[in-house]
Amino acid sequence: MTRASYPFQPSVPDGRQVLGVGIDVVAVQRFSIALQRTPHLLSRLFAPAERLTPAGRPRSAASLAARFAAKESVAKALGVPSGLEWHDCAVQSAADGRPELQIAGTVAEAAAAQGISTWRLSLSHDAGLAAAVVVAIG
Amino acid sequence: MTRASYPFQPSVPDGRQVLGVGIDVVAVQRFSIALQRTPHLLSRLFAPAERLTPAGRPRSAASLAARFAAKESVAKALGVPSGLEWHDCAVQSAADGRPELQIAGTVAEAAAAQGISTWRLSLSHDAGLAAAVVVAIG
Amino acid sequence: MTRASYPFQPSVPDGRQVLGVGIDVVAVQRFSIALQRTPHLLSRLFAPAERLTPAGRPRSAASLAARFAAKESVAKALGVPSGLEWHDCAVQSAADGRPELQIAGTVAEAAAAQGISTWRLSLSHDAGLAAAVVVAIG
Repeated sequence: MTRASYPFQPSVPDGRQVLGVGIDVVAVQRFSIALQRTPHLLSRLFAPAERLTPAGRPRSAASLAARFAAKESVAKALGVPSGLEWHDCAVQSAADGRPELQIAGTVAEAAAAQGISTWRLSLSHDAGLAAAVVVAIG
Repeated sequence: MTRASYPFQPSVPDGRQVLGVGIDVVAVQRFSIALQRTPHLLSRLFAPAERLTPAGRPRSAASLAARFAAKESVAKALGVPSGLEWHDCAVQSAADGRPELQIAGTVAEAAAAQGISTWRLSLSHDAGLAAAVVVAIG
Repeated sequence: MTRASYPFQPSVPDGRQVLGVGIDVVAVQRFSIALQRTPHLLSRLFAPAERLTPAGRPRSAASLAARFAAKESVAKALGVPSGLEWHDCAVQSAADGRPELQIAGTVAEAAAAQGISTWRLSLSHDAGLAAAVVVAIG
């Protein structure tokens, strides 16, 4: 009876290993000033859909700062490889309200190369500070 | 020889999957002012035992803010379902000193519905900021 | 055919369980003042190699504060057992740029006693706040 006959992985089940963690804190005012001073920064960081709330209104500086923190957290969890595009990592709201990462292109490739299949994300902001944490699972 | 005869789970062992993560940052002064201005907020957020240190003294604003951040982190890790009661998620000190979550009622039901069996929690505060992070494991 | 003949673990694969999480936030200015006021604090907290950047320059207060937050996060994830030495937990840069924990002595013993075999770490600082998060895996 060979190992290949078993209907399961002999070692580690897929999608169960914590391969990375990322945290980022962003001062909202500093981020907001940077957005104002650098004309194309907003569009370079965020795709059009990311800049709007589900109700279609422009996101607050605090909400954008938290989403920027999410992108930075993902980059850190990946080891900050070169060539990541900001638009390839976006935050969207899942059906249950949880913020979810939507990765594509450069970020999806870097994640796949490391065996990362799933991301867990949480965002927070209060009194001028935005923060994000991600857990990369493979 | 059927699969049922194996004394182990063929796919994913129980209690090993990271099902959610939550982070929350709370400005201690803002939280403290809210507690002062809203008479019943303290008792609505915290059960009597939570408001006291192990030595029986009232907790500081920073300590309460960190515990509030823990409750918020848990709610986020669960996807902020409606109907969660603040008292159904409390922080207690484990024998080894680690803060532990004690969940019950509405929070325990939401966790069970998502297959979450274990929580890991950490708290921090410094210079006016309190923070909590939780990892939900199933 | 006995269980011992299978080339895999029957229950939980090694290194896959999240055994702890730690977060720490540090106000950089407060930390910097403490370093200035307490002459031997810097050398008590950090080994000589930790105080320098890869380029050999002294680390900034923010960078040291983030590394102090990492040490505190590890201590929290371990349940703050007594007897941990600051030098037994250091942050070094991995080949891919990710910060990695290098643990030894007292910290390695406490981790081993809890079945922890791997750590994931992330650091951040902005506008006067440094933060670290760790996940302990066993």
